Amino acid sequence: MRAAVMRDARLLVDTLPDPVPGPGEILVRTLACGICGSDLHALRHAPRMVEAARESGVPFTLDPARDVVMGHEFCAEVLDFGPHTQRALGRGTRVVSMPLTADASGVQAIGYSNDYPGGYGELMVLSELFALPVPDGLATEDAALTEPMAVGVHAVAKARLEAGDAPLVIGCGPVGLAVIAALRLRGAGPIVAADFSPARRALAERMGAHVVVDPARQRPIEAWQAAAGARPAVLFECVGVPGLLHQLMRDAPREARVVVAGVCMEDDRIRPMHGINKELSLQFVLGYTPEEFAGTLASIAEGSIPVAPMVTGRVGVDGVPGAFEALARPDAHAKILVEPWR
Amino acid sequence: MRAAVMRDARLLVDTLPDPVPGPGEILVRTLACGICGSDLHALRHAPRMVEAARESGVPFTLDPARDVVMGHEFCAEVLDFGPHTQRALGRGTRVVSMPLTADASGVQAIGYSNDYPGGYGELMVLSELFALPVPDGLATEDAALTEPMAVGVHAVAKARLEAGDAPLVIGCGPVGLAVIAALRLRGAGPIVAADFSPARRALAERMGAHVVVDPARQRPIEAWQAAAGARPAVLFECVGVPGLLHQLMRDAPREARVVVAGVCMEDDRIRPMHGINKELSLQFVLGYTPEEFAGTLASIAEGSIPVAPMVTGRVGVDGVPGAFEALARPDAHAKILVEPWR
Repeated sequence: MRAAVMRDARLLVDTLPDPVPGPGEILVRTLACGICGSDLHALRHAPRMVEAARESGVPFTLDPARDVVMGHEFCAEVLDFGPHTQRALGRGTRVVSMPLTADASGVQAIGYSNDYPGGYGELMVLSELFALPVPDGLATEDAALTEPMAVGVHAVAKARLEAGDAPLVIGCGPVGLAVIAALRLRGAGPIVAADFSPARRALAERMGAHVVVDPARQRPIEAWQAAAGARPAVLFECVGVPGLLHQLMRDAPREARVVVAGVCMEDDRIRPMHGINKELSLQFVLGYTPEEFAGTLASIAEGSIPVAPMVTGRVGVDGVPGAFEALARPDAHAKILVEPWR
Repeated sequence: MRAAVMRDARLLVDTLPDPVPGPGEILVRTLACGICGSDLHALRHAPRMVEAARESGVPFTLDPARDVVMGHEFCAEVLDFGPHTQRALGRGTRVVSMPLTADASGVQAIGYSNDYPGGYGELMVLSELFALPVPDGLATEDAALTEPMAVGVHAVAKARLEAGDAPLVIGCGPVGLAVIAALRLRGAGPIVAADFSPARRALAERMGAHVVVDPARQRPIEAWQAAAGARPAVLFECVGVPGLLHQLMRDAPREARVVVAGVCMEDDRIRPMHGINKELSLQFVLGYTPEEFAGTLASIAEGSIPVAPMVTGRVGVDGVPGAFEALARPDAHAKILVEPWR
């Protein structure tokens, strides 16, 4: 199959052997797969990512010295079945899935695995257990956004919002936009959202933000205070670069809860006295539960999570390296979909 | 009055003008005042402490270039009254108080103020509003431990313990010992506590720890796992030196809650991926509420918070500089009481 491959910390297009479904697995054809900011990080920081996972005791078996086909935000079509499969979802069924599978070697992250290629290639192997059928009438590209939107649903669930809590979303990339949609789904507000990019601020409004702020003109916390007054603050860090957590802790109001949804793969420096003086809490979040993933698909299908504004570009396999370069300039894009059949 | 004074980042003994109670204030004679680890930090890092407070928006008016009489863990005796006082607590009444007062200049922290000397001097001025009478039969030196024990009660309250949560206390200095006592008061367990010092591990057992561990011989988290198995982890950071939060986040089990009760006044480096991969939460804590302070005094009086093991030394005003030096070697001491009348 044709695929965009991470090889020696570079991204190139090559022809690889077709993957073969094992016991309990299905072979699928990739219809659409979003490019995730974590993949841009991984291309630069894969060894550090592996080291941090190992130190944390997280099962994660990626070898950065071997080929990896990334892509974990996908919608696909069932092509064939491995041994010992139920086959309740027949050939031609469109499916989405949490990007996880388990074989004899342990848990594998589809798209961050040497053995399970992700959606930047024409074919994937999924665990039949995790495959969910895409409801009729839901566009393939909307279904492909289930994974990134579930990240927002989970981050908001971990915030344990109470009545009166007022959110501030720092960063309106895909994670921030997903958080905004999930906040809107819960009826939280006013939702204040900050991003340097005018295009992303416009997207944030389309996703449900009530107030948007340009940090170059006004400190986000000031815009939040103007909108929320003395209400309890729940701050969502959706950028994931060193230094941002420090800023947020410095500017946070007393007893604010900070939800860290940005994925910062580098070490970071904080000033603990900011946390201590104001009794801040930080909740780091990752991924979603199976229930949240399925619930997100249902919410997208019924139109209560908007996704249409998210997609700002489409490429074939050959366009993946260029799309990575385009995404490094965050002004221009939110989500670029890879459609390997193009 | 005679007092131990922080002057030009050094501690010396001098004679200062007696403080004069203003409206709503009372003049008291210091009977006993514990030396707090934060005072050792403050002696070295006062300008940084002031800067962090200012950045955090905390009202804190200390000028490190002027004299400060530290000491905020005190029991005292009422001597006289300022104007506009109720005088419900008569002369000779023993009192404890949260180390806070408010005058025309704003909120002041007794013991971290240029205007309100703390308990390392013979006399103090307190807000009548915050003074609590010491119950008859409660020893003065036990009452003086209300403040540090309230810190533990508050830290444990902020942990929002649920049934089955299993605590690990890192560091068995006064803060760690207070946390252990507060955990025991709530019936939490098994309480696992770690400290390099054999003397402090022995104190931890007397305060209520079920298991103590020497980090030089075994990683604290391993001792915790042996005692707690797969129960939810609540880790109390009670050391407050750079690097410790990183270690704790690296070693914490999945979904652990970390309560940061140690007061680290320097910048610190963390690896966010540890927090993200394991969805950790951090709750920074400081101080206590008025209700927690009063409740701690009552618990000490009824014997449900043990305090006798805490006091490992007593000095007069002249002994304060030497006591600071002794406390810099954490093996020998937990709490040294200053008794300025000596």
